Amino acid sequence: MKTSLACIPCIITQCLTTLNLTRVDEEKKKSAVNKLLEKLKTIDYDLPPSYNSDIAYAVAYEFTGVKDPYLKLKKECNKLALEIYPKLKEMVEHSKDRMYTAIKVAIEGNIIDFGININKGKPLDFQKILRDIKEMPFAIDDYKEFEKSLDSSTNIFYVGDNAGEIVFDRVLIEELIRCGKKVVLSVKSGPVINDATLEDVREAGLTDIVKVIETGNSSIGVNFRSISQKFVDEFKKADLIIAKGQGNFETLDNIEANTFFMLKAKCETIANKLGVEYLDVVLVKRRHEWGSKKI
Amino acid sequence: MKTSLACIPCIITQCLTTLNLTRVDEEKKKSAVNKLLEKLKTIDYDLPPSYNSDIAYAVAYEFTGVKDPYLKLKKECNKLALEIYPKLKEMVEHSKDRMYTAIKVAIEGNIIDFGININKGKPLDFQKILRDIKEMPFAIDDYKEFEKSLDSSTNIFYVGDNAGEIVFDRVLIEELIRCGKKVVLSVKSGPVINDATLEDVREAGLTDIVKVIETGNSSIGVNFRSISQKFVDEFKKADLIIAKGQGNFETLDNIEANTFFMLKAKCETIANKLGVEYLDVVLVKRRHEWGSKKI
Repeated sequence: MKTSLACIPCIITQCLTTLNLTRVDEEKKKSAVNKLLEKLKTIDYDLPPSYNSDIAYAVAYEFTGVKDPYLKLKKECNKLALEIYPKLKEMVEHSKDRMYTAIKVAIEGNIIDFGININKGKPLDFQKILRDIKEMPFAIDDYKEFEKSLDSSTNIFYVGDNAGEIVFDRVLIEELIRCGKKVVLSVKSGPVINDATLEDVREAGLTDIVKVIETGNSSIGVNFRSISQKFVDEFKKADLIIAKGQGNFETLDNIEANTFFMLKAKCETIANKLGVEYLDVVLVKRRHEWGSKKI
Repeated sequence: MKTSLACIPCIITQCLTTLNLTRVDEEKKKSAVNKLLEKLKTIDYDLPPSYNSDIAYAVAYEFTGVKDPYLKLKKECNKLALEIYPKLKEMVEHSKDRMYTAIKVAIEGNIIDFGININKGKPLDFQKILRDIKEMPFAIDDYKEFEKSLDSSTNIFYVGDNAGEIVFDRVLIEELIRCGKKVVLSVKSGPVINDATLEDVREAGLTDIVKVIETGNSSIGVNFRSISQKFVDEFKKADLIIAKGQGNFETLDNIEANTFFMLKAKCETIANKLGVEYLDVVLVKRRHEWGSKKI
């Protein structure tokens, strides 16, 4: 999908949020923001928003020298999520439709938004999570199509999103494996925001369960300008692709494949694209009208 | 108060919101945003945020030629507010503490936020307004000091904020007059966002009740670089100043005067300055530590 003008303030906010996680002084932050303002004047609006958001993180790194400002946060999010992992598993095991519940658990991992505000040391509110999952307010729910598609699929390619969320993904991945599917999970090759890396999926206990590959870069979503051959191979081999979160939607929406997106629309631009309201939740099968690029 | 880095994305959003109210095409909007990005590189962070927000509206005007994009919206907001005005008056008349209720009505006018989303033709939800006023969640409530100060005051200078809100202000202004106070109300000399102008206070039925003066410019808040002599005179003459909304707080917080601010903190920067949470409501007396500039 393309970058919209509404993405510009958001890209600057992403840079500021990242700068504020470091110890650089106000003057340095101003210099970083000025550099970003300059760069934003020449961005390509035909590219996905995530490609342009990458600029924010590159500028933050250039001015702070901090390679992974979200490291501590990511570890905290994994820890919090792992604390409730047994309860999430139990929920799936006691449900009428295990797969549907596991999907909702995975989406809940995206709803929680393991962002910078979660890092207060408090455990996750499991009662709220339970309520969220029971009453998940799907604006688009293509589960029937997912179910049908899953029946005729063997190879599932799971495009991961954030640390913390990855523990919720584990519940769905384990359910897919239980149903006899072969699952490959992709994570980032290096740090960007709080996106899951190999270290995170190791912490989440996924490396022993599933084949994990890296995207080949540390870009938000799937950046095809520097994607790994492994990613391309697994993507092409897959019968069904599960893509979590906004970044993956922004970059895979127009790629011809049997892709199901699971996310909460955390900005107006994404909501508009999906034809839903801001903050709505969707399980949506990729639509042909979004484009037909070959990978 | 000073501009913070967090104001930058907000200033761009203000420009975009304004551009989107006009019929200019996407390319023109991009050019406008690029011009704004360039200008934001050289802003003076020591100035109040509103001074720098003015740049967003100047750029929008430069690229669209539309002098008052909020005109239709302002008229709609005045109309909606006037529909419930009799009920607001009734509420004050039946309350135990008329002045306190009138203040809460005026603050509710700021809480409602007569922004672009209100313009759906629907009447205002009076039941919600009633609840808001009854349960107004003051994070700072300096009413006792206000009451004391009002007792020894004759001349009140009321610094107005938005269209629509101005009808709610009328309730407080009428209560002040009923108590024998002389009230002067200031409005903008020209259009900026949805700020009230002479035309709006005429529509709100205020011109027959109170002396209305203009700020001398069409800047957000009180821009002392081009303020009218009338404003300065009335400000100096006043025993007590009531300043509504964020723009006025941003520009009057450091000016030595007996000023009471009434607003909802609609951004983190204002909330931080006031030491309250985002979206909190305050009736706050100006504090000496905020500065002691003479007008």
